[in-house]
Amino acid sequence: MKNILLVGAGKSATVLISYLLEHAVKADWTLTVGDLDVETAQSKLHGHPRGAAEFFDVHQPDLRRQAVRKADLVISMLPAHLHLPLLQDCLAEKVHFLSASYVSDEIRLLANEAERAGILVLKECGLDPGIDHMSAMAKLDELRASGANILEFETFTGGLVAPGYEHNPWQYKFTWNPRNVVLAGQGVVKFRHNGNYKYIPYHRLFQRYETLHVPDFGYFEGYPNRDSLKYAEAYGLQDVATLYRGTLRRPGFCKAWDVFVQLGMTDDTYEMEGIEHMTYREFTNSFLWWDPLQSAELKLAAYLKMDYQNEMMEKIAWLGLFDKRPIGLKKATPAQVLQKILEEKWVLEPDDRDMIVMLHKYVYELEGKTERVQASMVVIGDDRERTAMAKTVGLPLGIAARLVLEDKLSLRGLVIPTLPQVYQPLLRELTDFGVIFEEHELEPPAG
Amino acid sequence: MKNILLVGAGKSATVLISYLLEHAVKADWTLTVGDLDVETAQSKLHGHPRGAAEFFDVHQPDLRRQAVRKADLVISMLPAHLHLPLLQDCLAEKVHFLSASYVSDEIRLLANEAERAGILVLKECGLDPGIDHMSAMAKLDELRASGANILEFETFTGGLVAPGYEHNPWQYKFTWNPRNVVLAGQGVVKFRHNGNYKYIPYHRLFQRYETLHVPDFGYFEGYPNRDSLKYAEAYGLQDVATLYRGTLRRPGFCKAWDVFVQLGMTDDTYEMEGIEHMTYREFTNSFLWWDPLQSAELKLAAYLKMDYQNEMMEKIAWLGLFDKRPIGLKKATPAQVLQKILEEKWVLEPDDRDMIVMLHKYVYELEGKTERVQASMVVIGDDRERTAMAKTVGLPLGIAARLVLEDKLSLRGLVIPTLPQVYQPLLRELTDFGVIFEEHELEPPAG
Repeated sequence: MKNILLVGAGKSATVLISYLLEHAVKADWTLTVGDLDVETAQSKLHGHPRGAAEFFDVHQPDLRRQAVRKADLVISMLPAHLHLPLLQDCLAEKVHFLSASYVSDEIRLLANEAERAGILVLKECGLDPGIDHMSAMAKLDELRASGANILEFETFTGGLVAPGYEHNPWQYKFTWNPRNVVLAGQGVVKFRHNGNYKYIPYHRLFQRYETLHVPDFGYFEGYPNRDSLKYAEAYGLQDVATLYRGTLRRPGFCKAWDVFVQLGMTDDTYEMEGIEHMTYREFTNSFLWWDPLQSAELKLAAYLKMDYQNEMMEKIAWLGLFDKRPIGLKKATPAQVLQKILEEKWVLEPDDRDMIVMLHKYVYELEGKTERVQASMVVIGDDRERTAMAKTVGLPLGIAARLVLEDKLSLRGLVIPTLPQVYQPLLRELTDFGVIFEEHELEPPAG
Repeated sequence: MKNILLVGAGKSATVLISYLLEHAVKADWTLTVGDLDVETAQSKLHGHPRGAAEFFDVHQPDLRRQAVRKADLVISMLPAHLHLPLLQDCLAEKVHFLSASYVSDEIRLLANEAERAGILVLKECGLDPGIDHMSAMAKLDELRASGANILEFETFTGGLVAPGYEHNPWQYKFTWNPRNVVLAGQGVVKFRHNGNYKYIPYHRLFQRYETLHVPDFGYFEGYPNRDSLKYAEAYGLQDVATLYRGTLRRPGFCKAWDVFVQLGMTDDTYEMEGIEHMTYREFTNSFLWWDPLQSAELKLAAYLKMDYQNEMMEKIAWLGLFDKRPIGLKKATPAQVLQKILEEKWVLEPDDRDMIVMLHKYVYELEGKTERVQASMVVIGDDRERTAMAKTVGLPLGIAARLVLEDKLSLRGLVIPTLPQVYQPLLRELTDFGVIFEEHELEPPAG
C-alpha cells in the first residue's frame, strides 16, 4: 500500500482531496492530510477509511522529515515560499514531490539532485501555471507536427465569477488569494509584439489591455502579466514574433482598477501615518491634493481627468472609498487598506459560483496560408466547495499523483507539464471534469 | 602645524581646495588632497607650497588608515556609500570628519562612538543638505525667539543654469550627477499639507509641482522630494500643518520629464533586450504600442493624450528620442539609455554658468496675525571651475574645517548644521561669497 502526504488543507485542496480519496481503494493508497489546523484537515476527509489528518508545521524540521519519510509521494499546497525545506526532505528521503506553484530559482538549482535521487519533482502542475502549459503545448506540438510555422502565441487566464453571479459593478469577486490580486503586475511588464520587445511600466499596465471574446461567455479584458517571455524556451517559441501572457477580467475592470494604481493605493512598500484614526474617505484623500473647497469625489475626478459621473467613479464609490467609516486597522500599507476594503465587498456569497476562463491565440503559417485560431476553456464551479478554481488547480495534481503511483508516469527529475508524457494523460482525464478547449477561427486584424 | 586630508578631488572640490589653500598660511595648516587620480588632485593645487597630492584608494585599508593617521581633520568628498570605512578610521585615530552627504542609518549608529572619541563628525554640511539646514534654522529660531508660532514650512533647492545660458528647450543642463537627476524621486513621496499627510506615487510626482517666483529671477517649478517629514524633529516642526521639501526646475520641465516617467524610461531595475542594435527611435518605440500605420511621434502623443504639437513633444524631439541613430551601448537599463541621451544634450558649454536657487516659505502666527514670508537665495557660478554648485557645496565644509582647527567650533559627536553654534559663524562668512537670503512677504493663497 502506497502513502500520499498532502500538505495544506486550504480551499484549493478540497477537490484534490476528494479525487485522491475516490481512487484510494482501487489504487490502494492512503492519504494523510497535514495542516496546522487538524480540524479543517479532518473535516475534508468526511470520515473516509483511507484518509487521516495530522498536525503539520513546515517550520518544525523533525516533524516535517518524519511525515515525509512515511510517504511515497508528497503534494504541497503550501504557499510557494515554504516549499524549499519540504522539497529538500523529499530529496533526502527519495519521495516524489508535486506542486502547482512556479519553479523558483532555488528550486531550479535542485534539478540535478532530483534526477540523482530518482524522484519526480513535478512543479507548475495546477491551472496557471499548469493547464496553460498542457493545453498550449498539446496544440503547439500538433501544429508543428503538421508542418506549421508558429508566428504568434498569446495566452490568458482569469479566475472570475460565473455568469448569473457577477452582478456587482466590477463583475468581480475574490475567488483566490486577495493579496495577489491587489499586488498583481507590480514591476515592469515585458512581452514581444510583431518582432519588437515591448515594456510597460506598472502605472500604465491597466491602460494597455486587449479585448477578447469567448463564444457563449461574452467579452473579457486581458492585461499582460509581468514576464511574457518566461516560457519562450520551454514552449519552443524563441523566434515567434508575438509572445504574450495575460490575465482576464470582465470589461471595465482594468480602467477602474487603474484608478487605484494612479492614486498609489496598491503600494505595499510603506506604512501610512495615523491609519488608526483614519476613515475610508480620509484614506482616499491622502492621495489627492489638499483643497477645502472641493469634495474628495470632485478632486478624484479632476486628478484623473475623468468626468464627474462615469463608470469608474461608480465602481470606486460602490466599494466605499468615500465613506466616513473608520478603516479599523492599526498599521497598514496602502495595499493592505485597499485589500481590507475590497474584501468587504468582493466576497463570494454562499450560493455564488466561480468561473475559470483560459484562452490561447495561435497564429501560424501552414501550406502558404496564415491561420488564426483561438482555443478557449471555461470551467464553472459546482458550489462554494467544489469551485472551478479548486477543480482546475487540484485535479491536475491528483491525476499526476495517480499516474506516478500507478507507475504510468516514469519521468524523473524536475519537470513541468510541457512534455507529452505528462500533458497527454492529464488532458485526457481532465476532459471528464469539463476541462475542454473549444477552437474557432479568428478574423485577421483590421488596418 | 595642523594637517587636513581632503579625499576626492572631483568637480565639487575645486572651490573648497582654493578656500583651504587661501587660509593655509595664516591658519598654519597643510592640505593633502587624496584621489585615485593624483594628477587631477595635483592640478587643483596650482603648486601651492602648503598643498600636496597623494594617491588614495578608499578600498585599501592600510593606505586609508595611514592617510587618516597623519591628519587632524578629514573632509570626504567621496560618494556617500564609501564614507563608512573612512569614518571608522577617523573614529579609531580620533580625527575630525566632515562631509556634505546625508547621515545614513549606519553612520547614525556611530554617534555615541564619535562622542566618546571626542571628535566632531559634521555631516550634511554642503548645499542641500547643508545651507538649507542653516538658513532655515536661523530663521525658525529667530521667529520662535520672537514668540511666533510656526504654521507652515516649505523649502526648495535647484541646481540650474544661470539666466542667459539656459537657451535650450528644457532650460536645463547637467550641473551635477546625471544619474541622480535621472533617478530622482523614485519611491513614494510623503509630506504634510494643512494638517493632512499626503502621498504621491512616483508616476504622479512630476504632475504635482508648485509654481514659485523669485524676484529678479522669474518663475520656477518645485516638485516634492521623497520624504519631506525627515527633518520634522531636527527642525522642531513636528506639529506644523504643512511641511514640504522640493526640487526646483524652470517652468515646463516637470511636464516634459513626466513623459519619460510615463513611458517607463527612468526604470533602472531591468536590462533591455537587444540594446546593442537599437536606435534612439526604437528605444522610444519599445514603450509604445506596436502599430505599423502610425509614427512613433503620433503614438507617443496619443499614448499620453497630448496634442501632436506641444512643448513636451518639442523637448523630447530636441533630445533626439526619435532619431534613427544607434544608441551605442551594449547593455543598459532604460534609465542608463536615457542618461546617455541626456548627457549628449544637457552638457555645460565652456562659457556656461550654473546657478543655485534656494527658497524657503514660512507661515507663522505672531501677535494674532498670520504672516507669510519667502526667503530666497541665488548663487551664480563664476565660470566652469568655480561653479555655483562647487561654491555652495564646498565653502560650508571649508569654513567649518577652519573653525574646528582654530578651536572656534567646540561641538563634538555626530552633528548636522541645525545648531546655532554651527550655522551662525558659517552663514556669517558665507555672505562674503554671495550666500545671501532676500526676504519678502507673500500674498495669502486664493480661495
